[in-house]
Amino acid sequence: MAETKDSSQEKISLELGGGGKMMRDFIAEHIVANFGNPFLEPLADSAYLPGDIAFTTDSYVVMPIFFPGGDIGSLCVNGTVNDLVVAGAEPKFLSLAFILEEGMPLDELKTILRSIRSSAEEAGVSIVTGDTKTVRRGQGDKIFINTAGIGFRVGRPDPSRIQPGDKIILTGTLGDHSLAVMVARGEFGLESDIRSDCAPLNYLLPFWNDGTLWMRDVTRGGLATVLSELAEKLSHAVLIDEGSVPLSDAVRGATEILGIDPLFLACEGRAVLVVPGKKADSILQRIRNHAYGRTAAVIGGVSPTVGRAGEVLLSTLSGGLRLLEPLTSELLPRIC
Amino acid sequence: MAETKDSSQEKISLELGGGGKMMRDFIAEHIVANFGNPFLEPLADSAYLPGDIAFTTDSYVVMPIFFPGGDIGSLCVNGTVNDLVVAGAEPKFLSLAFILEEGMPLDELKTILRSIRSSAEEAGVSIVTGDTKTVRRGQGDKIFINTAGIGFRVGRPDPSRIQPGDKIILTGTLGDHSLAVMVARGEFGLESDIRSDCAPLNYLLPFWNDGTLWMRDVTRGGLATVLSELAEKLSHAVLIDEGSVPLSDAVRGATEILGIDPLFLACEGRAVLVVPGKKADSILQRIRNHAYGRTAAVIGGVSPTVGRAGEVLLSTLSGGLRLLEPLTSELLPRIC
Repeated sequence: MAETKDSSQEKISLELGGGGKMMRDFIAEHIVANFGNPFLEPLADSAYLPGDIAFTTDSYVVMPIFFPGGDIGSLCVNGTVNDLVVAGAEPKFLSLAFILEEGMPLDELKTILRSIRSSAEEAGVSIVTGDTKTVRRGQGDKIFINTAGIGFRVGRPDPSRIQPGDKIILTGTLGDHSLAVMVARGEFGLESDIRSDCAPLNYLLPFWNDGTLWMRDVTRGGLATVLSELAEKLSHAVLIDEGSVPLSDAVRGATEILGIDPLFLACEGRAVLVVPGKKADSILQRIRNHAYGRTAAVIGGVSPTVGRAGEVLLSTLSGGLRLLEPLTSELLPRIC
Repeated sequence: MAETKDSSQEKISLELGGGGKMMRDFIAEHIVANFGNPFLEPLADSAYLPGDIAFTTDSYVVMPIFFPGGDIGSLCVNGTVNDLVVAGAEPKFLSLAFILEEGMPLDELKTILRSIRSSAEEAGVSIVTGDTKTVRRGQGDKIFINTAGIGFRVGRPDPSRIQPGDKIILTGTLGDHSLAVMVARGEFGLESDIRSDCAPLNYLLPFWNDGTLWMRDVTRGGLATVLSELAEKLSHAVLIDEGSVPLSDAVRGATEILGIDPLFLACEGRAVLVVPGKKADSILQRIRNHAYGRTAAVIGGVSPTVGRAGEVLLSTLSGGLRLLEPLTSELLPRIC
């Protein structure tokens, strides 16, 4: 993060927003350190308040604002909805705050507003309060949106109850969102019919009452980062079978050509669930019965024998074991 | 708002964020129209949810980010706190979301974080969840902050109970915030020791249980806009005595020189209260006993005889009656 050792010269770098370890360290050192209180759980995306109220916030700065399978409007609803779902809360209410750049075409805003409306309807949330600000041309980037969300507890993540033999389910193919945004940008000369996976995860809520021990949506930092955060909480290693990780043909092809590891790509409609081993098959089947979960798979579990506490190990296609590290800085700027 | 009649050519103009009638019409026509639900009250700054939970959001884009008497950090706490107070809710929890521009000096962010911490402590709110995003140089303006706030109901604004003879209290001098920001920008070659009035309004909460019928913080659009919103709800006119409106010497001098009407200037620590006539003196006295209310005054009331429903009339220093209109477009960009 530091461009020099002299603190008075340090500047914010783009990588701080990338979802990787650098961002997490920065937030822990500079931001969370200022605001200790019983409700603030560092690195959790939601806080629980008295009365089992869950509260979360996210700003959306995706570029471009329209991409195959979604736009900044569907993103700003689903991203915040999903933060609540994986915290064990049923999403109910959203705030909606715009920072609009002078000169943004009104028709684009109208399209985004329609997208917000239909996404909110699908996710069962009401937009109850809002704010609109404008900035001069060149001091923003068309539109930034913040949504904060309120939900109510229906489940309770409890990583302390996770034990060897528990299984890890990934609810669908990885990286479709990231690559859809990259294609929409015209980056790498990519052409593809790939579409973002952007979707609400409300369909996972019933699994909280069916033994699910932990959930996390796979966003900035990708699967590898989510699994690293999980492993930090455990006294055994997480063991993932590379061959079981679902990838669409389009993502597999594009990441091979580009030399990008799909384990670091962001999704906007996928989650990881940790479930008791004996319940894994039935939960997986029910997830696969849902339109958004058709490509779900058990991708690994908590190993009773291999590795050490805190490690994420990947059993690779070639038969080796690879230690998986969280994303350090930034893979792809502004994809969510 | 429209630059042409052809909707496909219309673009967002800076004035939409100015707090005036143009912004209100735009929000009503384009934004609120998409999101009808029982909780969304158009033009109110907070929503009430089941369980007497109040919920509000605001994005802060002030430029410059530091100004005499405050900075974007104190602003983003007090602005959201005050939206809850004037809705009748005790502020308890804030979310905090940053959009940081690449290259922003880290020391400035640290200063802002300290300011957020001390402002939150003073206002009795906990920062419980957050988000950090970065954008490329030239696609933001150093720092934008969104705070959403949760409070719990302690009072109930009820404009339907407002009647002729009720009094209007303004809790302090007008426009100090606007002018402090203008001076910090170096606009108009102004030099002044003026300081922003940025402050939390929690000290007004007890007045909800003492007969207060309505409150509104005086922000974008100024006193004239707040009074217009009040008058819309009434079956009589609002009559204001220009000579009673408190102004600091610095604001009086600067606005006279610049030809700006202080009735349209934004504050960040002032509110208007509508109280029963017979309670006005005692409430005013108690407000003036507070450090943030020393310059409070009764500035007028609901007139039994003068004017028509919905009108705001100003009894001017020169002895005339002037019809006060809300701010139409934008007086001063990005002061809050």
